[in-house]
Amino acid sequence: MADTHLQDPGLGEKYDGKTTRIINPDGTFNVVREGVGSKINNLYHFLLNVSWTQFVLVLIGGYIVANGLFAVLYLIAGIDGLAGVNDLDTTNDFLIAIFFSFQTFTTLGYGGLSPIATDINIIAGFQAMFGFMSFSIATGLLYGRFSKPSARIKYSKNILLAPYENGFALMFRIVNRRDNLLMDMSAKVLLATSRKVNGMYIRSYDQLNLAINKIDFFPLNWTIVHPIDEGSPLYGKSASEVIKLNPQVVVLIKGFDDSFSQEVHSRYSYTLKEIIFNAKFKPAYKVFEDGSTHININDIDAYTKLEGKVGDILKKESQKV
Amino acid sequence: MADTHLQDPGLGEKYDGKTTRIINPDGTFNVVREGVGSKINNLYHFLLNVSWTQFVLVLIGGYIVANGLFAVLYLIAGIDGLAGVNDLDTTNDFLIAIFFSFQTFTTLGYGGLSPIATDINIIAGFQAMFGFMSFSIATGLLYGRFSKPSARIKYSKNILLAPYENGFALMFRIVNRRDNLLMDMSAKVLLATSRKVNGMYIRSYDQLNLAINKIDFFPLNWTIVHPIDEGSPLYGKSASEVIKLNPQVVVLIKGFDDSFSQEVHSRYSYTLKEIIFNAKFKPAYKVFEDGSTHININDIDAYTKLEGKVGDILKKESQKV
Amino acid sequence: MADTHLQDPGLGEKYDGKTTRIINPDGTFNVVREGVGSKINNLYHFLLNVSWTQFVLVLIGGYIVANGLFAVLYLIAGIDGLAGVNDLDTTNDFLIAIFFSFQTFTTLGYGGLSPIATDINIIAGFQAMFGFMSFSIATGLLYGRFSKPSARIKYSKNILLAPYENGFALMFRIVNRRDNLLMDMSAKVLLATSRKVNGMYIRSYDQLNLAINKIDFFPLNWTIVHPIDEGSPLYGKSASEVIKLNPQVVVLIKGFDDSFSQEVHSRYSYTLKEIIFNAKFKPAYKVFEDGSTHININDIDAYTKLEGKVGDILKKESQKV
Amino acid sequence: MADTHLQDPGLGEKYDGKTTRIINPDGTFNVVREGVGSKINNLYHFLLNVSWTQFVLVLIGGYIVANGLFAVLYLIAGIDGLAGVNDLDTTNDFLIAIFFSFQTFTTLGYGGLSPIATDINIIAGFQAMFGFMSFSIATGLLYGRFSKPSARIKYSKNILLAPYENGFALMFRIVNRRDNLLMDMSAKVLLATSRKVNGMYIRSYDQLNLAINKIDFFPLNWTIVHPIDEGSPLYGKSASEVIKLNPQVVVLIKGFDDSFSQEVHSRYSYTLKEIIFNAKFKPAYKVFEDGSTHININDIDAYTKLEGKVGDILKKESQKV
Repeated sequence: MADTHLQDPGLGEKYDGKTTRIINPDGTFNVVREGVGSKINNLYHFLLNVSWTQFVLVLIGGYIVANGLFAVLYLIAGIDGLAGVNDLDTTNDFLIAIFFSFQTFTTLGYGGLSPIATDINIIAGFQAMFGFMSFSIATGLLYGRFSKPSARIKYSKNILLAPYENGFALMFRIVNRRDNLLMDMSAKVLLATSRKVNGMYIRSYDQLNLAINKIDFFPLNWTIVHPIDEGSPLYGKSASEVIKLNPQVVVLIKGFDDSFSQEVHSRYSYTLKEIIFNAKFKPAYKVFEDGSTHININDIDAYTKLEGKVGDILKKESQKV
Repeated sequence: MADTHLQDPGLGEKYDGKTTRIINPDGTFNVVREGVGSKINNLYHFLLNVSWTQFVLVLIGGYIVANGLFAVLYLIAGIDGLAGVNDLDTTNDFLIAIFFSFQTFTTLGYGGLSPIATDINIIAGFQAMFGFMSFSIATGLLYGRFSKPSARIKYSKNILLAPYENGFALMFRIVNRRDNLLMDMSAKVLLATSRKVNGMYIRSYDQLNLAINKIDFFPLNWTIVHPIDEGSPLYGKSASEVIKLNPQVVVLIKGFDDSFSQEVHSRYSYTLKEIIFNAKFKPAYKVFEDGSTHININDIDAYTKLEGKVGDILKKESQKV
Repeated sequence: MADTHLQDPGLGEKYDGKTTRIINPDGTFNVVREGVGSKINNLYHFLLNVSWTQFVLVLIGGYIVANGLFAVLYLIAGIDGLAGVNDLDTTNDFLIAIFFSFQTFTTLGYGGLSPIATDINIIAGFQAMFGFMSFSIATGLLYGRFSKPSARIKYSKNILLAPYENGFALMFRIVNRRDNLLMDMSAKVLLATSRKVNGMYIRSYDQLNLAINKIDFFPLNWTIVHPIDEGSPLYGKSASEVIKLNPQVVVLIKGFDDSFSQEVHSRYSYTLKEIIFNAKFKPAYKVFEDGSTHININDIDAYTKLEGKVGDILKKESQKV
Repeated sequence: MADTHLQDPGLGEKYDGKTTRIINPDGTFNVVREGVGSKINNLYHFLLNVSWTQFVLVLIGGYIVANGLFAVLYLIAGIDGLAGVNDLDTTNDFLIAIFFSFQTFTTLGYGGLSPIATDINIIAGFQAMFGFMSFSIATGLLYGRFSKPSARIKYSKNILLAPYENGFALMFRIVNRRDNLLMDMSAKVLLATSRKVNGMYIRSYDQLNLAINKIDFFPLNWTIVHPIDEGSPLYGKSASEVIKLNPQVVVLIKGFDDSFSQEVHSRYSYTLKEIIFNAKFKPAYKVFEDGSTHININDIDAYTKLEGKVGDILKKESQKV
């Protein structure tokens, strides 16, 4: 490994304990941030990022809870302040209160139930405002969820140590998981290694050279290749030497999302157990008879194990060169 | 053609079949992507990109279907749970149910029809919520459709091989199809050629030098010119040699949309049959008496065929130089 | 003037008539674009950019017209299809129809007027949908109007030929007209000159060197200075020579709007009659006793005429150097 | 201090009085801008930036005032133009008018109160429109408040003069206060000093070299370090010499907000009294047993005073080197 490492890319160099995966598969960092305070903006971000199922459940749940609370207010004010109560099939006061709450919250206001008491009129005036604002917030959230231009890049499950030109190379593949048009992609790949010094864990970073680090278009998959040549921090290392360094490959992808006209970023990290020694990716796209090209995004994971001893291939490879 | 081609710009180099046009006229790639899953976000993108006519039809159709489904629910609950049914002109239960559904979905709630049964009250409470959310989603879609800052660049129908300085040049013209102000335009033009090797189709890419590859302002048309000089992969080629390469000209335009304050991109590809040998574009703008400049965006297609044999002009041209 | 001009920055080089001001004071180009088609998106842009007064008038006018049209539909269907007509003070059928239309369009639905006929029920169901969508579109427009991050740069009315170091310089000032925080500003200034050749007007462009062409912060005014030294196309020219060239100074400002987190652009052009020979700008900001700095954005226009013959100062200046 | 300072970064060089802090802790400039006019857009920006408490108070207050004003209109028109008045519990005309106003503004329209007079019908038709538009504007504001991608960077309270390698360095720390993912951070640090010349205060600017001025990721804190070496304007200065210059450290941070896919900027300035001579930051993050890293954003302020005379350390340090 070269003596001069990269400067800290912001991931920290000194740790007082053994750390695990740097970047989680969802692109977040394995860092717990405290003292941030439970800001309303964080709630917004939470609702922006939960799954659609959870989001819909939160909406329906919130709707029921909010109507329940207002129903209690109407009960306290007394539902004899409502006209039309006797026309209903039910005589359950809470049900009546919640029906009136429904009709007010959504600004339906059929009038079958209609406020006659002053306190109910005032509560209803504010509930309708609150209801309108709630739907506004829900609108904003929905729009925010749809228009969030986050790149959904699928990374191949494994990073391969594959034959490349006269030697070997580290290779992984990425593909666009969404139908957005991504363009002007660029990749930056770091190798993080760590060793224990005086009870502290010192992490070092090296940037890995790539055969191609920019592409103009991204309709297919992109195989990102780090050739293990003299410039590589892995050059001349045996597999066991590599394993001792506890390496992680940190990937940073940038691109331009043409559907949203915005720059998008994506992160990933591969740990040691995701490295496959001596394997080769299978082609991920093929041409049909009509001249169109077909790609299945799940095919980017597929690889073939190659023959030969898995052992010290890096070493051998370096000697070969 | 130069021996060293460009690295793959992300469009693939090896194909197991003969491919057709790389970029469709609407800017999408001729690639079918599978395994993406029918995500809700893709539905959003679909509705963002369909024509206005289709969009309005989807809205109206969705509105009728949603009201029909809720009408069925009301029928199941029994429309005797509604007050005011007898005041209507019609005695058709489904019509009555759909009228009540209309009035609930839109939060109209006249009250001429008013829920008295518990089940109808509950269904109505959720329909009103569902209605409000539907209109929220429609609002988001409408806003998204309007505010999508996609460049609508019109490309001249043909790419011309036209006289230029002492030789020839490939020329095409672009113009802004919308009234947005575009600025800081830049162009990148690639030549994709393909040949069959061992049953595989190998595609190569070369970047074409441009006389001007950046302009600050874009109120008029822009003629993009690739002079066929020593630096050109087409230099010294006869027309028949060019045709054998099955060339495609891939165009990538970037700019800044001042109306939306966002970067915008546009793509296009010209295939062999869109190349006109030995022709010249007609001027696309003229000055009126009041000193204002007038441009008709459809005029950028207009060209004049030049005299002379169409044959080996590239060859001749090269020899001339 | 240097023999080698700048390449065409996209504003055209050959004109078949005499042109006037290149960029209008509102930042649009003096170009009439035809064949664009009256797209719905252009209507959106129109409504995004009209003044607030016009916008509000369009909204109110549209609201009245839409309600009027639906009122006509209700009249055709027959207002005897409405319950509650006799409770109203008026017996004017059109007024009754428009009141019902108001109550339906806004989804008010008091129920004082309530649809009993089938045709009225159906029309009302769609009017309520149409009404909701209209308000959605208005919401989108309002949000679009507010969130459009267009830089509102105020340019000093005049560009001065002012003393600068040992010679002279062209100077104009800009200031941020809005309370947005602008940062990372950069300026590009072109000189467009034109001359008549064979009945055509040939326009040439030169980029003017600036003493400072980037600033990090922009809370105050920024004086943009082009020193007329050997590198300037105006160097050694007499005032009458300059006037003969029919010069225009085209300004392009870019910056980062920190309130919207977006890049913003601004354009302006100064024509000959806005050049003041031999004058000096007055300071535009001052410090108050509490240590705060005050700037009035209208003060950036203020200048003082200097003594001395206005005549051939450029020439003299050049000779001095 | 070097003789050649930086060019004015847009903060002004000549002042007619003694100025205070350049950038306020909230990132705004200490500049009062006049003549901007009380534009509707500025109101929008105000409402976008006030605290949530103030925002909610403005919404509720505006809602009450608007309803009160329409209530007055209904009183003027005469509430005998309303049907259903006698069903209410109250006989207070203003209360009745405001209840009707509530029900109209929110498009509730129960119908318990229903307009029968022509003038009330017309006022109500426009109030409902006005109400709908008001909620639209509130929706836009809410969405704008949530989606404003402003970086909330927390700066350490103090800037330390801390030991660094063989000498000293100025150090401060920043951390992301929100849960947004920030990436591609870069820092620019200026030193502003001022002296009095002929009654004017002349401010000069120097850019401070940083040990690291870019990081790729920002999940933890970032310590920004200016080593005081030969290239530093503080090199060889005694503490008293530094104090005489009335220095301010102006910080400009840029980054990419991955949650909003937008570039974000942040500003800060440290004045003399925030400099701590001879101190050292405490570590701000630690690793837990499960391998996760924990950071409390408030810990970035913590430092330890070092032993030794505080006096002329800069001088001493320079002599040491």
